[in-house]
Amino acid sequence: MIGRLNHVAIAVADVEKASKVYASTLGAKVGPAEIVAEHGVKVVFVELPNTKIELLEPYGENSPIAAFVEKNPAGGIHHVCYEVDDIVKARDHLKSEGARVLGDGSPRIGAHGKPVLFLHPKDFCGTLVELEQA
Amino acid sequence: MIGRLNHVAIAVADVEKASKVYASTLGAKVGPAEIVAEHGVKVVFVELPNTKIELLEPYGENSPIAAFVEKNPAGGIHHVCYEVDDIVKARDHLKSEGARVLGDGSPRIGAHGKPVLFLHPKDFCGTLVELEQA
Repeated sequence: MIGRLNHVAIAVADVEKASKVYASTLGAKVGPAEIVAEHGVKVVFVELPNTKIELLEPYGENSPIAAFVEKNPAGGIHHVCYEVDDIVKARDHLKSEGARVLGDGSPRIGAHGKPVLFLHPKDFCGTLVELEQA
Repeated sequence: MIGRLNHVAIAVADVEKASKVYASTLGAKVGPAEIVAEHGVKVVFVELPNTKIELLEPYGENSPIAAFVEKNPAGGIHHVCYEVDDIVKARDHLKSEGARVLGDGSPRIGAHGKPVLFLHPKDFCGTLVELEQA
């Protein structure tokens, strides 16, 4: 069912500072910071040859990553995102296996403009998993 | 400097159980469990089209991931591993940038038989980073 690892998301308090770590210290190809207001994040994409790292900073009120960054002021890995061909089929399979899908189970449009779902970390090795329809 | 994301390592208390999550629930291609005694882990590789997930269980006395799993009994993402062409050049660059390399700074042979180094999470967005010479 799952395909490519679309990205690893790392949440930080200051995305410009994190950008410098990836650009200067690690020598990766790093894009400009972009605000995605409707998802409550300021994001920088680190382009690796085979996947992406997304550096996320909380933006605005009620950012979904604000509590995480408060608990992890040095930053930390927030989630991994796997691609699926058909997100509704994927959800139905997961539910039939007894796995918990977060929210009301309806895919919403994610930060890349594609349907996404988040899965309960307790059912997935303590890891918050995003599924994105490729 | 950094190239491909070689793998994401997820540490868990029971790698057979985690295997089933990835094989049955997420429908990924999952290999057999292997003991890598000299690194203190039992490991399962999840092969995605563009990278790998490594599921790690502590093995034996003094496993380097034992404390992590004790703190995170449901499991959690332990580290990410980026490939570099020349690990000694990479280390020297990192040190010149003021970043902390763990241990005595000498690459050791990692679980894939290649030279590796680990970098201090505090200098890398709260993320334990492994560098592996590709």
